[in-house]
Amino acid sequence: MKTYIDCIPCFIRQTLEVARMVTQDQGIQEKIMREALQMAHDLDFADSPPGLAQKIHRRIRALTGKNDPYSPVKTKFNQFALDLYPEWKKRIKNSGDPFATALKVAIAGNIIDFGVNGALSRRDVLHSLDMVLDEQLDPLALESLRNAIRNASDILYLGDNAGEIVMDRMFIEQILPQNITYVVRGFPILNDATRDDAEESGLTELVEVIDNGSDAPGTILEDCSEEFKKRFENADIVIAKGQGNYETLNTAPRHVFFLLKAKCPVIARDIGCQQGDIVIVESNSAVYK
Amino acid sequence: MKTYIDCIPCFIRQTLEVARMVTQDQGIQEKIMREALQMAHDLDFADSPPGLAQKIHRRIRALTGKNDPYSPVKTKFNQFALDLYPEWKKRIKNSGDPFATALKVAIAGNIIDFGVNGALSRRDVLHSLDMVLDEQLDPLALESLRNAIRNASDILYLGDNAGEIVMDRMFIEQILPQNITYVVRGFPILNDATRDDAEESGLTELVEVIDNGSDAPGTILEDCSEEFKKRFENADIVIAKGQGNYETLNTAPRHVFFLLKAKCPVIARDIGCQQGDIVIVESNSAVYK
Repeated sequence: MKTYIDCIPCFIRQTLEVARMVTQDQGIQEKIMREALQMAHDLDFADSPPGLAQKIHRRIRALTGKNDPYSPVKTKFNQFALDLYPEWKKRIKNSGDPFATALKVAIAGNIIDFGVNGALSRRDVLHSLDMVLDEQLDPLALESLRNAIRNASDILYLGDNAGEIVMDRMFIEQILPQNITYVVRGFPILNDATRDDAEESGLTELVEVIDNGSDAPGTILEDCSEEFKKRFENADIVIAKGQGNYETLNTAPRHVFFLLKAKCPVIARDIGCQQGDIVIVESNSAVYK
Repeated sequence: MKTYIDCIPCFIRQTLEVARMVTQDQGIQEKIMREALQMAHDLDFADSPPGLAQKIHRRIRALTGKNDPYSPVKTKFNQFALDLYPEWKKRIKNSGDPFATALKVAIAGNIIDFGVNGALSRRDVLHSLDMVLDEQLDPLALESLRNAIRNASDILYLGDNAGEIVMDRMFIEQILPQNITYVVRGFPILNDATRDDAEESGLTELVEVIDNGSDAPGTILEDCSEEFKKRFENADIVIAKGQGNYETLNTAPRHVFFLLKAKCPVIARDIGCQQGDIVIVESNSAVYK
């Protein structure tokens, strides 16, 4: 997805939130803001929004020396989601359609996105989860995904955020014993899940976990490792969680199932849904391998 | 007032709102955004926020050829405020303290600020007015202003926005027959009041109206006409409406009474009040002439 002009004020606002989070030094905060303004000024709108976020976060790490500023937030939300795990496992099990319920829970977990909302609270997550039981996924998309998973011998599942990864685990437990590989980011970026989070969530004990070799908050293919790109190209089906993966892969040269909560108005408009909706989107290059 | 780092995201957001309002041409919208990002990048934080707004609005006028894009909005809110005039004149007259009530109405009218809120509606204005009857001004500041006006032989009243100017008229009618000069901006900028609005509001028939010779959404003294600067320096008291005048004159080398609704969190923090409060602020160089 290209960067829309609406993304610019949002990017500048996010940068200030992050600058305030990573340092108390007003001089460094100002420097971060000036660099972000310059990057936004120089922006090629054909690039996806995560490319811009990747650039500014690299500079923030260089300017502050903090390699993983979201580490405490990631651990906090992993733990919070693990605390919710037993109850939600029960609700999924007792629901009429555990596959669909677990899928909705996994998408509801996509609320845990500090790129979109730097002030996210546990209450927001509980609200997103509680709402989801009454929400409906598009029945055709749901059956398309269900069938694709049933017939696949090699599923590549691209994760998005820490915390959310525990909800992904609940869904993946419904798919097992199918052959699933879970993909995390190669390096810390925002609160996106890395290998540490896969371990904290318990996913590493259930499925193969690989990383994509990149520090972008999405999946910018040319920035990923050769190994990942091969896996991406050859997987029977690819499931990609979250806005960042949608923004970077919605025009990729293969079919992808995107699962996300449309948290921002720009993405909702791009998809053609309402802001806040939970959705399954199939990319246009819709030929299954 | 200096520009705070928080002003930057707000400035970028406002610029996009204005760009969308003045043109449908996405190429020009993008150019406006890029120029605003460059200006914000180059910003001297010691300058006041209206200086930055003045710069980008000059460029917007040059890029679009539209000299007064807010003209329809200004006329609409002047007319709306004139429609409210008879009822509010009655309420002021029938209140226990017509001076204080008219003053509060004039400050409530400061809600009509398209720099802060580009989607302002008539309903917002009615709400601000209805609320004000139950709101209290600081009694010491109120008496200080009342006494200063009573003892002044030359009052300079710096207006802010169209629409609001009708509420200023209601307050000024409580002060007459004191000698008052009302000041409008020299050129169109945002929805700030110019001579046309003074005429539409009926103010020109009541008091002398001059302009400050500047196209800033505030009063940047070095940018104003010599005539205005002389009047500003020599007036017995200066009353200045709105955030833009506060931001540009709160450290000016003379005492000023500021009357405003603290619509943004940065200004509320700078003043030491709550966002949304109606306030009288006396500048620190507080020696009456």
